Amino acid sequence: MFLGRVIGNVQATRKDDRLGGVKLLIVQPAPLEDKDTHLPVVAADRIGAGIGEDVIVAFGRAARLAMGDENLPIEAAILAIVDGTEVRSDAKLKRGLGNEKER
Amino acid sequence: MFLGRVIGNVQATRKDDRLGGVKLLIVQPAPLEDKDTHLPVVAADRIGAGIGEDVIVAFGRAARLAMGDENLPIEAAILAIVDGTEVRSDAKLKRGLGNEKER
Amino acid sequence: MFLGRVIGNVQATRKDDRLGGVKLLIVQPAPLEDKDTHLPVVAADRIGAGIGEDVIVAFGRAARLAMGDENLPIEAAILAIVDGTEVRSDAKLKRGLGNEKER
Amino acid sequence: MFLGRVIGNVQATRKDDRLGGVKLLIVQPAPLEDKDTHLPVVAADRIGAGIGEDVIVAFGRAARLAMGDENLPIEAAILAIVDGTEVRSDAKLKRGLGNEKER
Amino acid sequence: MFLGRVIGNVQATRKDDRLGGVKLLIVQPAPLEDKDTHLPVVAADRIGAGIGEDVIVAFGRAARLAMGDENLPIEAAILAIVDGTEVRSDAKLKRGLGNEKER
Repeated sequence: MFLGRVIGNVQATRKDDRLGGVKLLIVQPAPLEDKDTHLPVVAADRIGAGIGEDVIVAFGRAARLAMGDENLPIEAAILAIVDGTEVRSDAKLKRGLGNEKER
Repeated sequence: MFLGRVIGNVQATRKDDRLGGVKLLIVQPAPLEDKDTHLPVVAADRIGAGIGEDVIVAFGRAARLAMGDENLPIEAAILAIVDGTEVRSDAKLKRGLGNEKER
Repeated sequence: MFLGRVIGNVQATRKDDRLGGVKLLIVQPAPLEDKDTHLPVVAADRIGAGIGEDVIVAFGRAARLAMGDENLPIEAAILAIVDGTEVRSDAKLKRGLGNEKER
Repeated sequence: MFLGRVIGNVQATRKDDRLGGVKLLIVQPAPLEDKDTHLPVVAADRIGAGIGEDVIVAFGRAARLAMGDENLPIEAAILAIVDGTEVRSDAKLKRGLGNEKER
Repeated sequence: MFLGRVIGNVQATRKDDRLGGVKLLIVQPAPLEDKDTHLPVVAADRIGAGIGEDVIVAFGRAARLAMGDENLPIEAAILAIVDGTEVRSDAKLKRGLGNEKER
């Protein structure tokens, strides 16, 4: 799963029939640092997320489980709307491969 | 799922028999910013997408569900042709890990 | 699976009901070198990992197996808390595609 | 799926028994632009692809379906040998997130 | 699957019980060129790979098949120890999207 922010939505009339009632949001993944080279993700939503809200997104079967339909042709869905995160900056890795013992 | 644009197609005569009637399109993923280092994706299509159209692509079992055949040896398919997207630029993350409370 | 460090947690009240008792941690992947352009991962945890600890994270069905519930809508989970790693620096690849025989 | 070129093969005698008769090729993913930071992929092949040929590669269950054995421990396989591609350069995205309507 | 080199191992005492007898190695993916921005992968091993050896790693269900236990909570495993690779440098793609016919 990853953290991201809902930044938009998608309109599509020509689509798989089973996507008829499915709300599709555009989610921008939240990186640790400023640079962001990650693709936005199109995620299905039945939690009720809105633009500007931070969310947790899951891929694959977890997304279909979250939508309550294992045969829905989607592979990304919003699991939760984030109230807040707590990040301990002093816990962040300062260099590669934490607590590495070289020899 | 991701947003992308259909930029081409692929001809292949030596292939898995089950791919006989399957249209294969080349889709360029749509990044948030100008820089694009993402690989183009080859996606199966039964929606009827054409070159120049923007689409939603899904991977894995979702792609096979979209093609209506869970035993088709493909792992990417077009789910929908995009009419338009609405993106709230002011909702975009300006820095890493949104609404982070450091301590 | 990948190695990472737990750097935070996520609070979310509006979420899939099945996530009710699930602890969700933010894990920073540990790269080999200083530069880190990898997204943090939100991983479920039932091992008891805490902020600042190094962990092994798995994706997909392995994550649901680790949580003991194959129908939990999650796709990343902590498998183990790392006591230490041993990395042989002299074993690291110095250039592309190891022991390549060009012709 | 992705497009790539077969650039080599792999010899391995100590391996999973079920890989006994499986040809393993090294495929270089084909990016849209010159820069290529993508890992080469080791893909199983039963189509008969050779070094220098362009191919379509699939991951996951699609790869095992393509190999005709769902219990083969592989997760990438060649689906087709590419005769040619047609790419409309003028269809390529010039900037991020195609036909975006900002507000 | 990808090619990589075993560069280390991981010690973890607090872990999923089913990981009790599972050897976990740290594998550095082998890129085509010098630059390596790819995360090291933690892979289970029952082939008997050692530090400094080049290996083929598979993800997902293929990894569990390779370990001989489809319910093992792992998603990466070593399939084979590489004796050698043959790479035809002249077959490498010099630019994006091989044998592209633009119009």
